[in-house]
Amino acid sequence: MTDLRAVAWRTSDQSIVLLDQTRLPGRQEDFVARDVDDLIDAIVRLVVRGAPALGAVGALGVALAMTQAQREGWDADRLASEVRRVRDARPTAVNLAWGTDRVTPLMPQGIAAVLDEAAVIMAEDEAANRELSRLGADWILGRTGCDRVRVLTHCNTGFLATTAWGTALGIVRELHARGALELVYADETRPLLQGSRLTAWELQQDGIDYLLQVDGAAASTILRGLVDVAIIGADRIARNGDTANKIGSVGVALACADAGIPFVVAAPSSTVDVTTPSGDDIHIELRDGSEVTALGGVVTAPAEARGFNPAFDVTPARLISAIVSECAVVEPDGQSSVEALVRE
Amino acid sequence: MTDLRAVAWRTSDQSIVLLDQTRLPGRQEDFVARDVDDLIDAIVRLVVRGAPALGAVGALGVALAMTQAQREGWDADRLASEVRRVRDARPTAVNLAWGTDRVTPLMPQGIAAVLDEAAVIMAEDEAANRELSRLGADWILGRTGCDRVRVLTHCNTGFLATTAWGTALGIVRELHARGALELVYADETRPLLQGSRLTAWELQQDGIDYLLQVDGAAASTILRGLVDVAIIGADRIARNGDTANKIGSVGVALACADAGIPFVVAAPSSTVDVTTPSGDDIHIELRDGSEVTALGGVVTAPAEARGFNPAFDVTPARLISAIVSECAVVEPDGQSSVEALVRE
Repeated sequence: MTDLRAVAWRTSDQSIVLLDQTRLPGRQEDFVARDVDDLIDAIVRLVVRGAPALGAVGALGVALAMTQAQREGWDADRLASEVRRVRDARPTAVNLAWGTDRVTPLMPQGIAAVLDEAAVIMAEDEAANRELSRLGADWILGRTGCDRVRVLTHCNTGFLATTAWGTALGIVRELHARGALELVYADETRPLLQGSRLTAWELQQDGIDYLLQVDGAAASTILRGLVDVAIIGADRIARNGDTANKIGSVGVALACADAGIPFVVAAPSSTVDVTTPSGDDIHIELRDGSEVTALGGVVTAPAEARGFNPAFDVTPARLISAIVSECAVVEPDGQSSVEALVRE
Repeated sequence: MTDLRAVAWRTSDQSIVLLDQTRLPGRQEDFVARDVDDLIDAIVRLVVRGAPALGAVGALGVALAMTQAQREGWDADRLASEVRRVRDARPTAVNLAWGTDRVTPLMPQGIAAVLDEAAVIMAEDEAANRELSRLGADWILGRTGCDRVRVLTHCNTGFLATTAWGTALGIVRELHARGALELVYADETRPLLQGSRLTAWELQQDGIDYLLQVDGAAASTILRGLVDVAIIGADRIARNGDTANKIGSVGVALACADAGIPFVVAAPSSTVDVTTPSGDDIHIELRDGSEVTALGGVVTAPAEARGFNPAFDVTPARLISAIVSECAVVEPDGQSSVEALVRE
């Protein structure tokens, strides 16, 4: 397990240091956000991504805006509007707004108070991830009855997507640590290849056996009986259990339902949004079509082609076997509340 | 509609001229196969692909082997073994073996007789595609009740995949010609991007409105109600209706079943293999993992990553609303025979 962090505050120059996820796996480089524009650029370009990591970024982003306000002499309105820009830089993951909102009340107490709370958020996220990983591994081994499970996962939900350890990939790590992991099928996760670039890189570092597959292979890998459980993360979990996650997730869920294997969502309680009634109310980010028509600078379609590029999809609660947070494992049936996920 | 052909025999130098599909959409170049090694290289690298096109390639490949036998003085055993190499160059599409087997009995009558039969095969394929497109369009408009349909398709099934016109994309063309096509969602079709490279290029040439999406988006596009029907081709249709097609097809079928919209398979009768009882008996080609870990020369995963790369999947008959050939439209229920697809 690496000591690298996706997100950190650097006191020496009051900046946010991000492990630049657009460069992985080829290069391991930091991106340093020295002002709000830098940070928003990093969020939009996915230098940093992953719902829990964005929670930390939201909190630290408030501190960053406050340092810039001091340096540049902003008034209160300007500062508030810059904080809101950070908060709204991406719409689907609830955690970005959640992290921002959690520290905003502390702004009158100064930067140190905001940074202290951001540190608490990050520590809580790591603790939550480790606890939900234990709960999730227990549930999966109990449900499948397997000694060693074959797991399919989609997108990246490891330490790169969180403040440390990971959510769905945290459960994978926990299973591996228990000697209860056979193999991971990692979807490459087009268009931005978080699976092949980031998840593969994390699994490689941990010495976990895995196979990379195209997203279109997930359904048949599941229907062919090669997988015991699918585990994904979440960007926003609505009150009825409907879950927004990386585009391609609902297809995995449909295949699991058809094959009769469990489909598990893993997320800290900060990803649960009880103010959103259902998946229909979740705003799905529509990203630029050029992410579909090109890859790594290689144009893969006719010049005139238009890409349709929703970044997320919604898996209805009826297709989810279990949602795991640090508080509980909830088995949604389309009616039940997810409130247990956010309460001890 | 273009006059280009994916496959043609060139009399002047007794070669097979293939429109090199590995170069599209960037470049429009021919690949000339002058001997069996050239042809097998072209088949394996997917210079030419698509089940019906491979039927023509199989037939012409026998003629090519015969010219090489004359030139190089092969004995009958050597010629038979080279014909078998062509026949078995790819395992999943039944048409390659079908095309080879259909002309083999004519070998004693000489190259001209084999070429005549190959020409018949190609003419029949085009006629079959045009007829199945009419039948398919009729069925789809009847079933959906739409004046103008929104179609999702996967992989490439146009003139590039056939001898002319196309199968699933032939139905799209027919709908377009009738003024009954609203929009096409084309899956990019990883790993080799037949959707974004080839289908998009064909649609562009025909002036058909389309959007490209990643394969992982197909399920949510369908569940969100953006699509009225999905239409795919086939590489082999087993006796019970189970259908092998490009990896990712069964995920589209699962989404259609969940959304309650029709999932249609379009293929000429030459793709129906009544000697294969069910999908369990279809040999699925496993291609090199490097197709998953790289794209267009860009490595997208850690150097040590292993790719799992089945080229096809099997959609069970229970998920297929209709199979359309030039002979009939069959609505399989998992029990019914597909024999009507191969009989007038």
